[in-house]
Amino acid sequence: MRRPSTAVIGAGISGLTAGKMLGDYGVPYACLETSDRIGGNWAFGNPNGHSSAYRSLHIDTSKHRLSFKDFPMPDDYPDFPHHTQIKAYLDAYADAFGLLERIEFENGVVHAAHQPGGGWALELQDGSTREVELLVVANGHHWDPRTPDFAGEFTGESLHSHHYVDPSQPLDLRGKRILVVGLGNSAADIAVELSGRAMQNQVTLSTRSSAWIVPKYMYGLPADKYFATSPHVPLAWQRKLIQKMQFMTGSNPELYGLPKPNHLFFEAHPTQSVELPLRLGSGDVVPKPDVARLDGERVHFVDGTSSDFDVIVYATGYNITFPFFDEGFLSAPGNVIHLFKRMFKPGLDDVVFMGFAQAVPTLFPFVEAQARLLAAYAVGAYALPDPAEMERVIAADEQLYLGHVTDRPRHTQQVDYFVYEHDLRTRELPAGRARAGATA
Amino acid sequence: MRRPSTAVIGAGISGLTAGKMLGDYGVPYACLETSDRIGGNWAFGNPNGHSSAYRSLHIDTSKHRLSFKDFPMPDDYPDFPHHTQIKAYLDAYADAFGLLERIEFENGVVHAAHQPGGGWALELQDGSTREVELLVVANGHHWDPRTPDFAGEFTGESLHSHHYVDPSQPLDLRGKRILVVGLGNSAADIAVELSGRAMQNQVTLSTRSSAWIVPKYMYGLPADKYFATSPHVPLAWQRKLIQKMQFMTGSNPELYGLPKPNHLFFEAHPTQSVELPLRLGSGDVVPKPDVARLDGERVHFVDGTSSDFDVIVYATGYNITFPFFDEGFLSAPGNVIHLFKRMFKPGLDDVVFMGFAQAVPTLFPFVEAQARLLAAYAVGAYALPDPAEMERVIAADEQLYLGHVTDRPRHTQQVDYFVYEHDLRTRELPAGRARAGATA
Repeated sequence: MRRPSTAVIGAGISGLTAGKMLGDYGVPYACLETSDRIGGNWAFGNPNGHSSAYRSLHIDTSKHRLSFKDFPMPDDYPDFPHHTQIKAYLDAYADAFGLLERIEFENGVVHAAHQPGGGWALELQDGSTREVELLVVANGHHWDPRTPDFAGEFTGESLHSHHYVDPSQPLDLRGKRILVVGLGNSAADIAVELSGRAMQNQVTLSTRSSAWIVPKYMYGLPADKYFATSPHVPLAWQRKLIQKMQFMTGSNPELYGLPKPNHLFFEAHPTQSVELPLRLGSGDVVPKPDVARLDGERVHFVDGTSSDFDVIVYATGYNITFPFFDEGFLSAPGNVIHLFKRMFKPGLDDVVFMGFAQAVPTLFPFVEAQARLLAAYAVGAYALPDPAEMERVIAADEQLYLGHVTDRPRHTQQVDYFVYEHDLRTRELPAGRARAGATA
Repeated sequence: MRRPSTAVIGAGISGLTAGKMLGDYGVPYACLETSDRIGGNWAFGNPNGHSSAYRSLHIDTSKHRLSFKDFPMPDDYPDFPHHTQIKAYLDAYADAFGLLERIEFENGVVHAAHQPGGGWALELQDGSTREVELLVVANGHHWDPRTPDFAGEFTGESLHSHHYVDPSQPLDLRGKRILVVGLGNSAADIAVELSGRAMQNQVTLSTRSSAWIVPKYMYGLPADKYFATSPHVPLAWQRKLIQKMQFMTGSNPELYGLPKPNHLFFEAHPTQSVELPLRLGSGDVVPKPDVARLDGERVHFVDGTSSDFDVIVYATGYNITFPFFDEGFLSAPGNVIHLFKRMFKPGLDDVVFMGFAQAVPTLFPFVEAQARLLAAYAVGAYALPDPAEMERVIAADEQLYLGHVTDRPRHTQQVDYFVYEHDLRTRELPAGRARAGATA
């Protein structure tokens, strides 16, 4: 088995699981992290600015679905852990598997240049350079705020959810007229937090694409305990079935005055909030469709109504950004990046991407599954198909996971974890092992 | 028809509906109100101290169930109106039916003495006296805080939910260790509000009786739209059926770590909160059973655990109190007062009680139904049965509405509105009219 010198960019959940599995196979790697701590997005107040966690953030997936397969969450954790508990869990994971000693803190990759004969020349934060044979890109995709380009100009204060901490930080959001733009989980959480009557705000929520809003609990159990797609039945059929059951979830946003979603139920990641429908139904959050244009303090909506606001909170998602690659070399304009199994770029065989997906129900076991493929690839126990076959599979997978949804930056990375993991474990890994054996 | 001179004590929902119906029958009445405004409990910050509304309070019954039959709520109201909207609705009601001119503000009844030959001598707030033939007691039962008598002493701050306004009034409840005692709607709302992570509190909730916790919405519609007991099927059977459906509501508090309720589902008023289960399941609210004893900052629970607290919030309900009656003459020790149709005291034929019930789903149409009987009684179109028959009916009704629940102050006034209203309209009013005709 080969043991390529490897650099892992980032010590968030993707970098940690990558490191764990590379270490298991004896691959000599360094994890290069810009921050002074692990956890990435889950390190609230992360000094590297890459955490989007707000003070009240709880994970939207229950601990039953969230646990790494080889490191269950503590029994005394609540169903939906707080971000401090996720961070503590990742700390315990890193500690248990000796990952910390392989992490170089405050020594992120500033620039990565692909060498003509293969391999990478890295410039690091501390000014040094380093050459590695294999590069693992695990720098996350929830840290570079994406803001819509509305016509006109708003003269009040604007804030992206990435920078939102709580109702008093970084802005004093009490006694204000607030517009929250977006209907993802952050938009729902922030609209709920700011619309508590104790805050004395007037909160309006505007959405373009709209979204189905599912509860975290159903029948007293975490709702995601009921939900697991089967890898043995066509996904399209399963979507049809769950669409028939949609009424049981009360998730239709039109029930609460929001626009009709631009996709059917479970065609895209639903928003999880049991509180937002109640706030809408209690008049605490006023629903609006998309913004038409901004004009001073006034915001005009596409339904012809308009209102004045003091603050706009943009909970409008994130860009996929690789600040260490030359843009012409590799980027993801419009959040589109075509990757084989969301990991490999056809034609570039010494870089592996980790965690670049919107996995349903959650990214945690997804990156763990990717890490198994990564490590097998690193040591030569898994070989890629030829680039043409990779392109064919990319197109087929995108049709499977994305063919049914509107083309929007939010949805470009959508993947069904259960189908993905089953494919990797039962088909792709054995096939790649066979290919590796044939060429060895 | 007779037209007795009448005094109505209080201008809350009971006094207002009583006044409306007495006015319809031409009964000369004065509504004597201690405050400078109508609305009672629904007048947030009521100067007479009789409002228990906190800033964030929304009614727990949807507007569809809440509307008076003769005065629907505005179409633009949300499903679950805020207390400011309830107050505005009551203002509009009083205005529409000319009730304000009959209300004497800041002139409540200080003392009411039953005269030997019948009728009442009233001492009023302005120092004057007045004699009336008929007294209507509508002073409410959600204003005199009830606090449990725990062993030991707590040296932190204590607050009854009656006095709770918001997280900064009257106490600064941020960054504190807080124990909320109780599991009614106020307890749930306050525990949820104070446990928002932005408040940086540690919130614990302790309950003795426990309670079933139902959502305000089910399948995207106000849950109470699905619920209406039938007056044509024995209540006990209906309770059995709804108990079989309980799992669909996820309302079992044991799912979230709270004690097993001391009653079956729908045997007593459930607590309505979609947020509390999530807070419990997210670790933001720590569930505890009953308090065993207090000891300085420390509170010991009956399960043997103990914790230190800065503040105890008692959301432990209210006493039924008649401050204008001599206690020996008429009182409700332990919240027990035996009234015929929850309105008439056998042996006292010139006083009528309005609104002394915990009506499921809500008090609003309940008091409107009572007002119809009141007005018919006032003008002699309805006559009471003899006291012995009244006592027999009281016992039978208490068996019907209360026979199945544990004997607790919270439950002594429990009534099923649908059964009660049907009985009044189809049986009791016609029977009383017949009795009135027979004696006329």
